[in-house]
Formats: sequence, structure tokens, C-alpha cells
Amino acid sequence: MIRVLLVHDVRILRCALAALVGAEPDMEAEAASWKDAVRPVRGRAADVCVVDADMAGRTSLDELARFADHPGTAGHPPRPHRLLALVSQDCPGALRRALDAGASGFVCKDALPEQLVRGIRRVADGERFVDNALAQTLLRASEVPLSQRELTVLSAAAEGAPVPEIARRLGLSTGTVRNYMSAITRKTGARNRVDAIRISQGAGWL
Amino acid sequence: MIRVLLVHDVRILRCALAALVGAEPDMEAEAASWKDAVRPVRGRAADVCVVDADMAGRTSLDELARFADHPGTAGHPPRPHRLLALVSQDCPGALRRALDAGASGFVCKDALPEQLVRGIRRVADGERFVDNALAQTLLRASEVPLSQRELTVLSAAAEGAPVPEIARRLGLSTGTVRNYMSAITRKTGARNRVDAIRISQGAGWL
Repeated sequence: MIRVLLVHDVRILRCALAALVGAEPDMEAEAASWKDAVRPVRGRAADVCVVDADMAGRTSLDELARFADHPGTAGHPPRPHRLLALVSQDCPGALRRALDAGASGFVCKDALPEQLVRGIRRVADGERFVDNALAQTLLRASEVPLSQRELTVLSAAAEGAPVPEIARRLGLSTGTVRNYMSAITRKTGARNRVDAIRISQGAGWL
Repeated sequence: MIRVLLVHDVRILRCALAALVGAEPDMEAEAASWKDAVRPVRGRAADVCVVDADMAGRTSLDELARFADHPGTAGHPPRPHRLLALVSQDCPGALRRALDAGASGFVCKDALPEQLVRGIRRVADGERFVDNALAQTLLRASEVPLSQRELTVLSAAAEGAPVPEIARRLGLSTGTVRNYMSAITRKTGARNRVDAIRISQGAGWL
């Protein structure tokens, strides 16, 4: 029996995914929010964690990955669960985050249920699984157009912070922040700051 | 038997929702993308269409609603299907769009599956159904903070269009567009244009 944990922040959707997976004769499914999934509930053990990578921040994915590697404590055996990420074809940034977090499986969100179930079985067997539909996305995931510093500046801008505030937060001059913003706009092929945020959020870089 | 059509743009999620609903003994479930759902496929008939309102533009919802009221043609009886919208608590704009499109049911996305199933049964019986968890959202849905003109200007800005382009598109002077942007920023309580877009998208006004 493969124990599967479905992680998604929208309850009705994670319950629906659990219904889908739990209908397989060789799978037992449970659903959890991101917050609950990264909480060290020792009683819960999953073989495969299926996560919606588009909705996951880098921190949550890393926490979940670290948790998956947990060596266990006295009376609580290690939980060797593996990550399978659901990714949109047009969201290379999300695929990248899942890759960095050590996910073993990648299934396209536009796949049929059979593909997800196949991916779960392969990952549970200790293999890697990459949905063919994600080949192009995988290629694009290797080319993050922005540096870590640029991403930090752009994230702050996307939250609505004005340039002086971004400068203060990051200990930079306002001129430097403006230079970063120009570089970001150029590198993303955007028309302006709003466009750069839109493009980067769409691709999942932010 | 209640025939239910689950409409969501992410295939794996709409199939999962269909698995959930189809497991009920008195329901038959099918899944469709927005594009397919609004296409006049005469052969397909649903009693209740469940839609993810957060993901639906006003146009799609209106099309689906119009389609639901279709009087039918020779040999093709009318399809009196009713709309049930899945809505996030913090997205009053989406609830508003669903209300305007004539949805009969509103279920919170954070609800348990039983609540969705209950809502479908009530709506199929010709009743209205509003999830208690959406009471506050419903109140906020009546107070759209921006005028239709302001929403049009802000949508264009959110697509990355610079002020001169927005002015040209809408036949306004750049000064007028700037005035609209200031009014929008003030009314949404935003710190600047980017913040106004972020707030409006979050609430589902855009």
C-alpha cells in the first residue's frame, strides 16, 4: 500500500485530489495544507508527498524536503517520503523550486489522472519520474533570468514597497535599487516595472 | 441522478473534483475546461455546473450563464443547468462576478467535500445555497471600491501597458489616466500603482 499525502492550500481541491488518488486499489490518500504538511506530526507518515509546486514558496518546499529527509527520533522511525510536484507547463520557476528542493517526480497539471497515479507509483518505487509534457518547462527552468539579488528587489516591489523603502530594507541607495529595477525590466523583456512583475510572477520566478 | 459538470482550467484539478463528486451515489460527474464548458456542445447536458469563480473572468461566467439559460433548439431541449460557484473567502470580487452571472450556489473553497455535495443537491433542487463561511465575503462583495472605468484603466496597467498606451487605447489624455491612477491608489488604500494592482487582484476586482 502506498501512503500518499496531497498538499494544497485550497481544502476542497486537496480533498478532491485525495479522492482521486485514494480510489486506486494500491493507494491510501490523506490531504493537508502546506502549514500542516510541514508541521512535524510524527504520527503521520507518507511514502509520497504530492505538492502543488505553483502555489508553494521556496521556504515551504525546502521545509517539506528537509522534513522528508528527517532521520527520525527515538520511537519515531525516519520518514523517507518522496516529493512529487504538480507543475504548470508555463511555470518554469515553480519547476525550478521543486527541483532545488529535491523532488523526485514532476507531473504536468494538465495531465490526466492516470499520469499522476503512474508518477506516484514510480516515485514510491524509488525512481525519478518526469512527465513528457514538462520537457520544455524543464529546459526553461535551468535559465533563471534574474540573480538572487534582483529577485529580492523585485519581490519587495511586487509587495507594493516604494523604491525608498526597498532601499532601506536591503541597505542600498535608492539609485542602486533603480539600477536593479532597470536591469530586471531589460532582462525580463518587460515594458516597465509592472510588466516585469507580471512576467516574473507568471513564470513562477517570484 | 444529478448530472454535474466541474469547470476548472487545470485538468488534474477538475478531474479530481469530478472524482470527488462522482463518488456520490446520486451524482454523475464530468469535467471540462472553461473553453469547453462555454462551447455549445448540445449533446452534453448538466443539471449543475460547478465553477472555480476565482479563476473565471467576467466574460466566461457570463457566457456560461447565458448558455445555462439557453432556450434550446428543435430536437435539442433547453438545458436548465444551474451555476454553483467555488469562492475563496478573501476574494469578494470573484463572488461578485458569480452573483452577477446569476449563480444559485456559493461554496467556500475551504469547505469540506460534504459541503460541496450538499450545495450541489440544494441547487439541483432549484434552491439557493450560500455557505455560511462566505457571509463576510458576501457583504464585502457588495462594495466594489472602483468604478467600471477605473477597473478598465487598472486592468490595462496590470497587463503592463504604460500610461501613454492606456490613454491611446481608451481615448483619454495621459493626464486623465494619471488622475484615474491616483484615484484608484487612494480608493484601494494602496501605497502606489503596483500595490493597487496587487490589492485589486487579491480581492478579485480585476
